[in-house]
Amino acid sequence: MKIITLADSAGFCFGVKRAVDTALKMKQEYNNEIYTLGPLIHNNDVVSFLKDNLIYPIELNEISNLKDNDTLIIRSHGVSEEILNELNKTNLNIIDATCPHVGNIHKKVKEHYDLGYNIIIVGDKNHPEVIGINGWCNNSAVILKDDTEYHLIPNKVCVVSQTTERQATWENVLGKIIKTSKEIVAFNTICSATEVRQKSAEELSKKVDAMVVIGGLNSSNTTKLYEICKINCENTIYVENMSAIPDEFIKNENVKSVGVTAGASTPDWIIKEVITKMS
Amino acid sequence: MKIITLADSAGFCFGVKRAVDTALKMKQEYNNEIYTLGPLIHNNDVVSFLKDNLIYPIELNEISNLKDNDTLIIRSHGVSEEILNELNKTNLNIIDATCPHVGNIHKKVKEHYDLGYNIIIVGDKNHPEVIGINGWCNNSAVILKDDTEYHLIPNKVCVVSQTTERQATWENVLGKIIKTSKEIVAFNTICSATEVRQKSAEELSKKVDAMVVIGGLNSSNTTKLYEICKINCENTIYVENMSAIPDEFIKNENVKSVGVTAGASTPDWIIKEVITKMS
Repeated sequence: MKIITLADSAGFCFGVKRAVDTALKMKQEYNNEIYTLGPLIHNNDVVSFLKDNLIYPIELNEISNLKDNDTLIIRSHGVSEEILNELNKTNLNIIDATCPHVGNIHKKVKEHYDLGYNIIIVGDKNHPEVIGINGWCNNSAVILKDDTEYHLIPNKVCVVSQTTERQATWENVLGKIIKTSKEIVAFNTICSATEVRQKSAEELSKKVDAMVVIGGLNSSNTTKLYEICKINCENTIYVENMSAIPDEFIKNENVKSVGVTAGASTPDWIIKEVITKMS
Repeated sequence: MKIITLADSAGFCFGVKRAVDTALKMKQEYNNEIYTLGPLIHNNDVVSFLKDNLIYPIELNEISNLKDNDTLIIRSHGVSEEILNELNKTNLNIIDATCPHVGNIHKKVKEHYDLGYNIIIVGDKNHPEVIGINGWCNNSAVILKDDTEYHLIPNKVCVVSQTTERQATWENVLGKIIKTSKEIVAFNTICSATEVRQKSAEELSKKVDAMVVIGGLNSSNTTKLYEICKINCENTIYVENMSAIPDEFIKNENVKSVGVTAGASTPDWIIKEVITKMS
């Protein structure tokens, strides 16, 4: 009998978990097809699973095909003020699953834009979260990354970051802004989820005989988790799902305790399947 | 024959000129002894000149010796909220000649302190201006310079600078703050007069064989000018007035060109005397 411990923080971040849970709960409640504005998360297995449960992604230009009272979920990335207003004017049942951390950025951006600040977003201009944030300051934001040339912005800038931005990029861009802007309001809105997940895996890997790290094999955040665990626990394996766990790993009688962690795109049910198989 | 060039911007800044003009005007108006809370500016020659005009510096613990309706001038550096309130309770004729730029810092600091921000002042903790600013947040400010170890300050910091701080120091200190504080409001309150004076001294010091920096020996902004010039021009001297210029400096035949600059508390007449002596 092995003791199996799941890391305190593993798998989906708070915002993604909340959006997926909301979709599943809505499906159960309405017992009807429901829709998400764009794929709910960037994970094909999860999107397929949701489709199997009659939860379909649709694009903005397709919503006129929906019927009155159909349920449409806004995903965790959030949307612009304009789209939110447009959706609220329809007869659809709009469920806003915008991550509260992202919603907080929308609020700060709108408030400071209305006070006359020039908005700067540190992040990727093509990411839906950034596009959404920019929609709370009339799409006027300057969007910067490490390699973007910083051109002088006059007084009163308000700077926010994409929630998944790297801390080093935040410091790099803000380091340029402080040289030229006289009045700066800066909110470091990078979400601590990734860091917390890594710390929690690191701690667990020090206490167990073996570790199972679950995630897509091309997932960079899962690879990082694997590397961290491997330092403390030689017997660490990296698997996509329960079927990838070798029999000899399960049957190894020297392994009395196993720790489990998972990357940001791994849903709970895959984690549960792994734990069940190990037990 | 040496070529002598005065920096484009040198000498009294707006705030100091305003305080000196106010003192002289009050003296003319009341035709009586008047008092300044501390030496009006950091320049012994000017303070002597003012004394000759019956304008005397006194310390806070001496004001009980003044008579009702005596005029007391608050100098351009400003004072704490507590001292201002105390003075306003007396029967003295209080004239507040606090530089409006410094008054603006007091306002921002008080406002943000009341909103729960931790106040950080980039400047010299012993400078009267910084002591005054700190008195608008219940003396709770963390006062930082380049070499001060920066210890983590929790969320919500409001950062201001001494008006005469160096831009490089501002960037250096703020560069540390952005690494740790999640919410930052930063007002670069370095007075543009200081910056313009420093840039103009810097440029001039690159082009000449020697530099003369004029100012009170306890004037922090003059010390900074001296440091900046010394980087580009090894033969830089720091003098209070014309009598302090060494003969060998004037007689040095290797020096064909001399640049002249002066701190914010150096009056025009002292600059003119120096130039005349050098010529």
